[in-house]
Amino acid sequence: MIQSLAITHENEVVTNFPIEDYQSLKFKWAWIDFNKPTEIEIQHLENTFKFHPLAIEDCIQRLQRPKLDYYDDYSFFVTHVLRSNLIKEEMNFFIGENYIVTFHMDDSFEVNHVWNQIIKRQTIKKWDEYAVFYHILDKIVDHYFPFIYSIEDKLSAIENNNEDKMDALLEDLFVARHALLNLRHTIDPMRDLLYRMLNSHHLEGIRKRKEYFGDIYDHLLKLSEMVSSNREITSDIRDSYISINSHQTNKVMRILTIITSIFAPLTFIAGIYGMNFLYMPELNWRFGYLFAIGLMIVVSIAMYSWFKRKGWF
Amino acid sequence: MIQSLAITHENEVVTNFPIEDYQSLKFKWAWIDFNKPTEIEIQHLENTFKFHPLAIEDCIQRLQRPKLDYYDDYSFFVTHVLRSNLIKEEMNFFIGENYIVTFHMDDSFEVNHVWNQIIKRQTIKKWDEYAVFYHILDKIVDHYFPFIYSIEDKLSAIENNNEDKMDALLEDLFVARHALLNLRHTIDPMRDLLYRMLNSHHLEGIRKRKEYFGDIYDHLLKLSEMVSSNREITSDIRDSYISINSHQTNKVMRILTIITSIFAPLTFIAGIYGMNFLYMPELNWRFGYLFAIGLMIVVSIAMYSWFKRKGWF
Amino acid sequence: MIQSLAITHENEVVTNFPIEDYQSLKFKWAWIDFNKPTEIEIQHLENTFKFHPLAIEDCIQRLQRPKLDYYDDYSFFVTHVLRSNLIKEEMNFFIGENYIVTFHMDDSFEVNHVWNQIIKRQTIKKWDEYAVFYHILDKIVDHYFPFIYSIEDKLSAIENNNEDKMDALLEDLFVARHALLNLRHTIDPMRDLLYRMLNSHHLEGIRKRKEYFGDIYDHLLKLSEMVSSNREITSDIRDSYISINSHQTNKVMRILTIITSIFAPLTFIAGIYGMNFLYMPELNWRFGYLFAIGLMIVVSIAMYSWFKRKGWF
Amino acid sequence: MIQSLAITHENEVVTNFPIEDYQSLKFKWAWIDFNKPTEIEIQHLENTFKFHPLAIEDCIQRLQRPKLDYYDDYSFFVTHVLRSNLIKEEMNFFIGENYIVTFHMDDSFEVNHVWNQIIKRQTIKKWDEYAVFYHILDKIVDHYFPFIYSIEDKLSAIENNNEDKMDALLEDLFVARHALLNLRHTIDPMRDLLYRMLNSHHLEGIRKRKEYFGDIYDHLLKLSEMVSSNREITSDIRDSYISINSHQTNKVMRILTIITSIFAPLTFIAGIYGMNFLYMPELNWRFGYLFAIGLMIVVSIAMYSWFKRKGWF
Amino acid sequence: MIQSLAITHENEVVTNFPIEDYQSLKFKWAWIDFNKPTEIEIQHLENTFKFHPLAIEDCIQRLQRPKLDYYDDYSFFVTHVLRSNLIKEEMNFFIGENYIVTFHMDDSFEVNHVWNQIIKRQTIKKWDEYAVFYHILDKIVDHYFPFIYSIEDKLSAIENNNEDKMDALLEDLFVARHALLNLRHTIDPMRDLLYRMLNSHHLEGIRKRKEYFGDIYDHLLKLSEMVSSNREITSDIRDSYISINSHQTNKVMRILTIITSIFAPLTFIAGIYGMNFLYMPELNWRFGYLFAIGLMIVVSIAMYSWFKRKGWF
Ligand SMILES: [Mg+2]
Ligand SMILES: [Mg+2]
Ligand SMILES: [Mg+2]
Ligand SMILES: [Mg+2]
Ligand SMILES: [Mg+2]
Ligand SMILES: [Mg+2]
Ligand SMILES: [Mg+2]
Ligand SMILES: [Mg+2]
Ligand SMILES: [Mg+2]
Ligand SMILES: [Mg+2]
Ligand SMILES: [Mg+2]
Ligand SMILES: [Mg+2]
Ligand SMILES: [Mg+2]
Ligand SMILES: [Mg+2]
Ligand SMILES: [Mg+2]
Ligand SMILES: [Mg+2]
Ligand SMILES: [Mg+2]
Ligand SMILES: [Mg+2]
Ligand SMILES: [Mg+2]
Ligand SMILES: [Mg+2]
Ligand SMILES: [Mg+2]
Ligand SMILES: [Mg+2]
Ligand SMILES: [Mg+2]
Ligand SMILES: [Mg+2]
Ligand SMILES: [Mg+2]
Ligand SMILES: [Mg+2]
Ligand SMILES: [Mg+2]
Ligand SMILES: [Mg+2]
Ligand SMILES: [Mg+2]
Ligand SMILES: [Mg+2]
Ligand SMILES: [Mg+2]
Repeated sequence: MIQSLAITHENEVVTNFPIEDYQSLKFKWAWIDFNKPTEIEIQHLENTFKFHPLAIEDCIQRLQRPKLDYYDDYSFFVTHVLRSNLIKEEMNFFIGENYIVTFHMDDSFEVNHVWNQIIKRQTIKKWDEYAVFYHILDKIVDHYFPFIYSIEDKLSAIENNNEDKMDALLEDLFVARHALLNLRHTIDPMRDLLYRMLNSHHLEGIRKRKEYFGDIYDHLLKLSEMVSSNREITSDIRDSYISINSHQTNKVMRILTIITSIFAPLTFIAGIYGMNFLYMPELNWRFGYLFAIGLMIVVSIAMYSWFKRKGWF
Repeated sequence: MIQSLAITHENEVVTNFPIEDYQSLKFKWAWIDFNKPTEIEIQHLENTFKFHPLAIEDCIQRLQRPKLDYYDDYSFFVTHVLRSNLIKEEMNFFIGENYIVTFHMDDSFEVNHVWNQIIKRQTIKKWDEYAVFYHILDKIVDHYFPFIYSIEDKLSAIENNNEDKMDALLEDLFVARHALLNLRHTIDPMRDLLYRMLNSHHLEGIRKRKEYFGDIYDHLLKLSEMVSSNREITSDIRDSYISINSHQTNKVMRILTIITSIFAPLTFIAGIYGMNFLYMPELNWRFGYLFAIGLMIVVSIAMYSWFKRKGWF
Repeated sequence: MIQSLAITHENEVVTNFPIEDYQSLKFKWAWIDFNKPTEIEIQHLENTFKFHPLAIEDCIQRLQRPKLDYYDDYSFFVTHVLRSNLIKEEMNFFIGENYIVTFHMDDSFEVNHVWNQIIKRQTIKKWDEYAVFYHILDKIVDHYFPFIYSIEDKLSAIENNNEDKMDALLEDLFVARHALLNLRHTIDPMRDLLYRMLNSHHLEGIRKRKEYFGDIYDHLLKLSEMVSSNREITSDIRDSYISINSHQTNKVMRILTIITSIFAPLTFIAGIYGMNFLYMPELNWRFGYLFAIGLMIVVSIAMYSWFKRKGWF
Repeated sequence: MIQSLAITHENEVVTNFPIEDYQSLKFKWAWIDFNKPTEIEIQHLENTFKFHPLAIEDCIQRLQRPKLDYYDDYSFFVTHVLRSNLIKEEMNFFIGENYIVTFHMDDSFEVNHVWNQIIKRQTIKKWDEYAVFYHILDKIVDHYFPFIYSIEDKLSAIENNNEDKMDALLEDLFVARHALLNLRHTIDPMRDLLYRMLNSHHLEGIRKRKEYFGDIYDHLLKLSEMVSSNREITSDIRDSYISINSHQTNKVMRILTIITSIFAPLTFIAGIYGMNFLYMPELNWRFGYLFAIGLMIVVSIAMYSWFKRKGWF
Repeated sequence: MIQSLAITHENEVVTNFPIEDYQSLKFKWAWIDFNKPTEIEIQHLENTFKFHPLAIEDCIQRLQRPKLDYYDDYSFFVTHVLRSNLIKEEMNFFIGENYIVTFHMDDSFEVNHVWNQIIKRQTIKKWDEYAVFYHILDKIVDHYFPFIYSIEDKLSAIENNNEDKMDALLEDLFVARHALLNLRHTIDPMRDLLYRMLNSHHLEGIRKRKEYFGDIYDHLLKLSEMVSSNREITSDIRDSYISINSHQTNKVMRILTIITSIFAPLTFIAGIYGMNFLYMPELNWRFGYLFAIGLMIVVSIAMYSWFKRKGWF
């Protein structure tokens, strides 16, 4: 679907004009939105707007890296939108002299939100193509935060775990790391893109709104820091878990060894006097039984002292 | 609460003047402090001082990253204050031609300290808006140190641990790492902020006090180094703990295996001659018992030599 | 084999002319392709084209790093082609005023593809030596992707593993890491090479096609990111696997210790009363058997409560 | 204690003149040394030399980071001296037009050495304040080496360890890592300080002795490399130790399992025929005993082949 | 030993002239080689060539880092040569207006090779002091490769290991890592040295041979990549080994636990009915033996199902 919207020099809003006329009608500025366009609609990019084939290719292909390309009469921006389950979608912008073209392959409430704001809004004078760009980008980046917050909540849950569900929690930890890695591959290129936009000499429209785009850049810096900090927390949790576990295994090993060490000789002695040889003098001793029990006590105490001296208690 | 303080050109201290007059009264310089301001008081930022909406938004929102934004007539600084339990609070500064506005959402003894110093002080001539900024910032950064010192003390305690409380110490280690990560996210951006302040061409007032702000930067460099060095120590302790533990598990395993290896065949032999078969020739031998005992001794010695040769003793 | 192809100023395609005439025949531009050249054919590089001995040496030696060298009249490019099983082959380019020389030691379908396109193609006017270079390079880089995709598929399979084939999967993980390391040593230098090409002041022909070579650079950036991200995933999988395993070992240890702890004393008691001493008062007690069983029950319950209190169930 | 030394324009050495006169006496150059100064002596820094309060504060406080501050008429250097047991001490330098002030809180044989050299020396013409600075700094850095050499020796000892003292060696390894971390926090800032000194445009006296201070920088580069290389060796040793240990635990586990697997069923069979039931037909068989022994042999062989097939031998 | 060689302006080779005359004899260029010089020969560096004492000190001391120092009339280069067993030796170069001095403390076949080439060679016109420098350096760096290749071979052997010699292979792995670390400390500074040489504005002789020294730089880049890549492979092998081992330990643990779990209760039951109490009703039951056997079978099946349900088979 292609939608069009323009502001005349008299600050009136015009919608749904034929997009071929976006130049000839001499608007103050115009916005054409490609929302899940058909193959035929996509051809407008080439035929009507004369965009470069490589830029059009980047629109059509899934998941280019966020980036900025300068062409003679327009700039081309690729940005990433995060949808539920961390699915990434692309939002592409072409910004020319007095127009902006947005191109996206899924419904974008960010676009709808800004579109409706313009149509309803009194203060139409303040808007132009860069204002549209800023407001959509601001919304896109604002919606990165809930994804990180949800991961942070899961990590807090894992930190406060109770033993029983350990396997599930380790699985959760792995999933969280995967999600953070995924997020980083959206957030870090977006951050670098904003940095380039802020420091570019070609983008006068962004220069004039430096504090606005700078505010988005602040958000991306913060997001990027949150991602790496949370990844460090996950590896801290895992390493800490491994050392606790190795400590517990060691403790359990000691108990096992102590028990085996004490009972193995005792059971062996009992076994000896359980043998059925005809001639076993001890069996007939008056205090043979007491002697055997005494021997066992001596062995136990010797073992016990040995471990005590080794510091295993 | 909003407090105001100003120095006239005659070097007299004026307090609690109506803040709307901070310009018209032609002070030498003025300081307006927003301490836990109400919603209505916050509106002064926009209406009285005409600060940019994005800067005001940064004031109101919790925990912006430390940063510096230049606006036409003033600069805007976000800094982090550490409160007990490593809670972070924001301290925001607007510094204009001859005024400073401080904005914070919790009671700040740093602000109070400097405020009282000015009111009591003889040498009022030396003060101006950047001196106020410096002294508050110096106090803020000075109060980062106790947090690191306390972590260093805990790490020393862990290094000198005794076995008994190992689980608690591993937990402490994890907590220390978490705290250090937290601290780093305050200290490193603060350090970068000071670096930018020192090297900025826009901040004449800081340039003139280069050695003072440079002293704060020194502190932040040192803090930053302490944080990363302590994080390395924690991971050293953990890795070292894991290798000691794995060594001990190995030692305990060997003892367990030796005991099992020696007593399993002995107990088995005793078991054999404990069987109740009617026809077991050995049972009736004159020296059957001695034979069995002899067999056991031979087996023990064989096992012992085997382990000796394997180097397990 | 040496092939030659040239476009005359009348835009006609000439093939298989004697390569010694590539300059004297005054073509618009010419392409000479060395495909698995013999020793004698290689001597043309020196005798006919007068290329620098060091550049020729780089052609002949296997697996130079991807790189770009400027000489007076031509530039020399080394690039890497990936063949099945991640075998690396070199593709070398010499680009001069109005000619391009390609040099490769294995059959290159990339070269054949472009060669055929030129011969068949109507739009012969648009082609020149840099267009040839671009189209071959584009094909080369496009064919890096399947190698990464296949690794990503293997990693997905490993993530969704089932216990039985664990050893094989760990082996696969190791192989995947090795392959990724291998890929990185092709992709990262290729990326740096494209970066240098795009930012060089010597390569006018690339400057004029900035968007085309920039598109290849985009691909390489994305590839480089995929490689490092997949390497991180492999180490995540391995670390996660180790912590799950150490957790399971710990659980199994506990069960083993519980069983040993409960049955060792019981079997010992049974052993005691299996001894054959003549004088063992308990054996003759009316309720001796019940007493022994009772003793065993008491010991079991004591052990059970002890472990319960230790939280091992 | 404050010592003073000066060279007149006639190249005569003057010592112990009143330090207030260091300027008025018109020396060629002068050196004033503060060795463990008292509070009252420290006041000379402010009153006599008019040094900046922040520089004086840095002198008095323990363990500033090595650094360099430019003031209007002098430069201020903080450097670290290593004393036995890796205790760090500060050595501070103020270098002005024709004087040098050294300030240190412990006895410095570096200072004494250079002091004596000047007093005894014929070639007094070659010395000036920067020569003093160079010679002290050279001595300071030369004395970093023995600390690293001693750590390298310990690491060699650990590499060639014999099993018996493993716990002590792991402790040594941890101590060595700690010491290296400690050293790095002296050496790396010192290296950066020298780099800044060599590349500074303010320090004409260092520029003229570029090869001399460059020689110290070489030493620091080498030291820095040795520290990081030795830290890598320690982590190599530890990781290697862990994998050897985990391999040994695995081997010991197998032996334990084999023994248990073979003797548990055998002992169980012996136990069966050790039961005292009145009616057990096998007990009365003529070859019951042989049957039992045969059964045991069959079970042993089955177990043995099973493990053989599993590849555990 | 000191050797001398010079080319006259008539392109004649002169050897073994007195080195004091290297300037006065007005050669086109001269080469003086110090091969394992005596103390007295070393004094020529100071007395005849007037080299700087610090450069001479660097010659005499063992193992300076590879580096480049500019002096007024000459440049001084320190490079590393690798001898068998990865022993490092220094090769020092002084290059002045029309002479080169080489200084080395061991026999250098690189020097001999180039020396002989010049003496035998027809094309004497092409040589000068920088050509000598290039050819020696080229040889030095070419001889780094065999050391890496030998390590790569060992790593391949380790990857294809068979279980039996695991301890030896882990030791080999550690040795390989050590060797790689060692190599890196030669190769990386050499690479940085070549980079500096190529980008220096002081070294006209190198600038004119940019492609030649650039070829050496290519080799060093490749070597540096090989070293880090091989170090990554070693840590991959080790980590992979640890996870396989931990998996195997886990498997062995399970088998041990299963055997213990099944036989411990069975042996206990047999122990019960092996007791010699006078009054044990079961012993006199007609089917007491069958009852005991039945009880054992029930317990075995219960255990078996329990483990089956836990998924341990
Ligand atoms: Mg797209
Ligand atoms: Mg926003
Ligand atoms: Mg916002
Ligand atoms: Mg930029
Ligand atoms: Mg903001
Ligand atoms: Mg956080
Ligand atoms: Mg705020
Ligand atoms: Mg302070
Ligand atoms: Mg202070
Ligand atoms: Mg900046
Ligand atoms: Mg700076
Ligand atoms: Mg200070
Ligand atoms: Mg410290
Ligand atoms: Mg080649
Ligand atoms: Mg492509
Ligand atoms: Mg393409
Ligand atoms: Mg460049
Ligand atoms: Mg593209
Ligand atoms: Mg991906
Ligand atoms: Mg101090
Ligand atoms: Mg020295
Ligand atoms: Mg020296
Ligand atoms: Mg510099
Ligand atoms: Mg030196
Ligand atoms: Mg070394
Ligand atoms: Mg030397
Ligand atoms: Mg070479
Ligand atoms: Mg060569
Ligand atoms: Mg350079
Ligand atoms: Mg080459
Ligand atoms: Mg290779």
